[in-house]
Amino acid sequence: MSLTPYQHLEKRFKRVHILRTITHLLRWDAEVMMPQDSTDLRSQQLSLLDTETSSILYSIKTAKLLDMAESSAGSLNAWQQANLKEMRRILLHSNAIPKRLIRSLQRAVSKAEMRWRQAREENNFALFAPHLEKVIELVKEKSLCLSEKSGLLPYDTLIDEHDPGGRTCEIDTAFHELEQELAPLIPRIIKAQTLHPPKKITAAIPVAKQIEFGKWLMNRIGFPFNNGRIDESLHPFTEGTAEDIRITSRFSEHDFLSGLMGILHETGHAMYDFGLPPEWSLQPVGRDRGMTIHEGQALFLEMFIGRSREFLQFAAPHIAEAFEVSGPDWEPENLYRLTNQVKPSFIRMDADEVTYPMHILLRYELERELLSGSLAVKHLPEAWNEKSKQKLGIVPEQASQGCLQDSHWAAGYFGYFPTYVLGAMTAAQLFQAMIRDEPDMLEQSRRGDFSTLFHWMGQKVYLFGAKLSRDNLLEQATGEKLNSRPLLDYIKKKYLV
Amino acid sequence: MSLTPYQHLEKRFKRVHILRTITHLLRWDAEVMMPQDSTDLRSQQLSLLDTETSSILYSIKTAKLLDMAESSAGSLNAWQQANLKEMRRILLHSNAIPKRLIRSLQRAVSKAEMRWRQAREENNFALFAPHLEKVIELVKEKSLCLSEKSGLLPYDTLIDEHDPGGRTCEIDTAFHELEQELAPLIPRIIKAQTLHPPKKITAAIPVAKQIEFGKWLMNRIGFPFNNGRIDESLHPFTEGTAEDIRITSRFSEHDFLSGLMGILHETGHAMYDFGLPPEWSLQPVGRDRGMTIHEGQALFLEMFIGRSREFLQFAAPHIAEAFEVSGPDWEPENLYRLTNQVKPSFIRMDADEVTYPMHILLRYELERELLSGSLAVKHLPEAWNEKSKQKLGIVPEQASQGCLQDSHWAAGYFGYFPTYVLGAMTAAQLFQAMIRDEPDMLEQSRRGDFSTLFHWMGQKVYLFGAKLSRDNLLEQATGEKLNSRPLLDYIKKKYLV
Repeated sequence: MSLTPYQHLEKRFKRVHILRTITHLLRWDAEVMMPQDSTDLRSQQLSLLDTETSSILYSIKTAKLLDMAESSAGSLNAWQQANLKEMRRILLHSNAIPKRLIRSLQRAVSKAEMRWRQAREENNFALFAPHLEKVIELVKEKSLCLSEKSGLLPYDTLIDEHDPGGRTCEIDTAFHELEQELAPLIPRIIKAQTLHPPKKITAAIPVAKQIEFGKWLMNRIGFPFNNGRIDESLHPFTEGTAEDIRITSRFSEHDFLSGLMGILHETGHAMYDFGLPPEWSLQPVGRDRGMTIHEGQALFLEMFIGRSREFLQFAAPHIAEAFEVSGPDWEPENLYRLTNQVKPSFIRMDADEVTYPMHILLRYELERELLSGSLAVKHLPEAWNEKSKQKLGIVPEQASQGCLQDSHWAAGYFGYFPTYVLGAMTAAQLFQAMIRDEPDMLEQSRRGDFSTLFHWMGQKVYLFGAKLSRDNLLEQATGEKLNSRPLLDYIKKKYLV
Repeated sequence: MSLTPYQHLEKRFKRVHILRTITHLLRWDAEVMMPQDSTDLRSQQLSLLDTETSSILYSIKTAKLLDMAESSAGSLNAWQQANLKEMRRILLHSNAIPKRLIRSLQRAVSKAEMRWRQAREENNFALFAPHLEKVIELVKEKSLCLSEKSGLLPYDTLIDEHDPGGRTCEIDTAFHELEQELAPLIPRIIKAQTLHPPKKITAAIPVAKQIEFGKWLMNRIGFPFNNGRIDESLHPFTEGTAEDIRITSRFSEHDFLSGLMGILHETGHAMYDFGLPPEWSLQPVGRDRGMTIHEGQALFLEMFIGRSREFLQFAAPHIAEAFEVSGPDWEPENLYRLTNQVKPSFIRMDADEVTYPMHILLRYELERELLSGSLAVKHLPEAWNEKSKQKLGIVPEQASQGCLQDSHWAAGYFGYFPTYVLGAMTAAQLFQAMIRDEPDMLEQSRRGDFSTLFHWMGQKVYLFGAKLSRDNLLEQATGEKLNSRPLLDYIKKKYLV
């Protein structure tokens, strides 16, 4: 029997999926295992896989099959229809941008990233500026191509790449509300915390022991090591799909909490991928619902669970046992204070959950100005410092602590930063809803039992894959659209009661 | 300017090469890093890469380009002509076998390997027999297809896959001569060794320390860690191409010498790949000249250097320092005796260099009988035991120590075993020639200086890639065709003088 157009498409997108999993592995290996001078070969390998994927997505045959499948979509079930919708989204995106532009952007990004590294080391923004200008010019061109095909605003097309369905108008409202209420809270929280300062932990914990404990904890949480692993890398990340997910964290002898929180963050990412609908694992509809939901899962486990009193009461005795330590510094309450210190800082990656949104608002406003042309790249350092003063109350003395700290813009990632705060809002909303449905959940985590948590998350989020829009997914899980209220309530309750 | 047919072919074979390097990485990862339940995804990934490669090699366009390039080969230089010859060899091979047969063989092999593992564990040959029958039937069919296209004898086509240019008539002669002289030497050597038995080393050396020392030694030998790494795996192996070569060894706390000799063996393989002509690294002619030469390189470094008095005199004090040990057990002479004990044994992989050829002759004879049909699979265990008695003087009590010990046949590897002994003959021949050209070479290795060794090997072997036939390569390096005389002379001199 011959295949229907829809079945042909499934075959093609399965190939795309397998190619993507190979790319995952090559990227993981490049960060964790690869010898340092093998970069040339690795980029040739990645580029070949990319060409293979494009040749499927760009093909006229695929486009025709999609047209045909859509015209007879009535005979498909809801999952298949949603799958078709995702295929259309992917094809629209890949066909909107001319190959020439993709190649120019890849080249510009690769140079910009190299220069960014050097500029940050030498603390010299001027080195990086012309390359950032070039990247911005090409990203703008890309957003115009996407806008023409999709009807979205140019900047919205960039958000949509990372957070399908994310729109400036909604983000503007949410961020405005958030900033209005959060700004005056920060000094109050800092003042309140001065009453109970934590005791610093200075003991050196060998990295091997930290990783061993991390594995034990991940296992307890439910990370299936038969289909995954953890390693050390320069920056924590998660790569893979449910059959093989690899997370990494960064470890420092004198700061085991940072490595541990990194593990929880990445485990949150991984558990989402592990929980996606297995029967759709090879198709677009079986993927996650974008970066906002994904980051929400990571922050849920790291911030809302991992940095809670309940979880730390569970973890503290196991930490003490694993690291052969004891004393008041290692009591749950001190670990709680250590992991929840609020203090404005220059570096986003080190920021606490209360000041973190301010780091993102700063970048969100600046990247829109850069793209609209109202801010010239050469004035970025001054603009950064001004906004830093305004939002965080501090001004970095060096560009490496300011506008040179992140690689996102060098990498052409515009429209990505907002998903960090949208993710925090998502996590708070899910947390509120979960507690409402399962009031015992935090108590269970105090006993090291995370089954209710992941069961709820599986039923409400994971198992939907990309079937629903991000908004519909959140609404059916929490009863409301994405908004800043639950995050603000959580912060007030946690830090000011 | 438009490309010539030859240039088009280079582009196509470059893609084949990059696909192959991705396959290398996936295979390495599967043995060393991959979570245990990710095998399904991994085989889908490998099969996709395989399909991609086939689609280039099977294409009518490629075949036409090759015809055109060959008809105007006069305008190409010697390297390009040799490259064309390799392309023809590869295409002939991939186009001779129907896709249906390749798929049947893959399926049969995959089942046979699974059953072989179980049969070996349960020591039950009957479990494995029907699967081996199926594999043999399909391998026979494959050899007939190849024979028809190439004009070679069916069994010779199988040898040719692993050792291009290897032919039964030459191997028969060499193996016959070898066995005639070697058989009576074995009891004499064993008797001679009873006069100076080595002292067993029973100290437990942590695996991490063994690997660390291995790295130090590899570095000293010249292994470029900027383009390679070493890890632990169940069986030692080498994967990769010069930009990224990864070796593994198997380590045991109570037998550091076996892990160390594994490292030397694999480093020998790796140094060959590192030394191949860099300007041809992406083309068929830039590859190694088959398994006989490759195994020869591995045995050269492990057996002829690593187990020599000179090398062990260099290594012993460094071993003592690294493992914090001392005493007569750790003296070079005792290490020399420990690494050169001759004793007939059941397991090929544990055999010494003197009895090792007997293990291979046994398999070589049996696999030819199996393929010709003169030996039925069901009678393999008895036939194995009989030959074992005849060649090694011992009879295994269990099939797991006899005909179930190796996975080669289950994997469809027929015509492969001979390359192990051809490799030993190659190594001996190169050793003799090198000593003739560079009489100081072993003295240098006593000082930990391996520069002359690798310079000679580079000039005489590595840098030719696959430009010359295996025979021409050996002749220009050593002045003679592949033969058993140097190996026999070496054994006599080492063990009986």
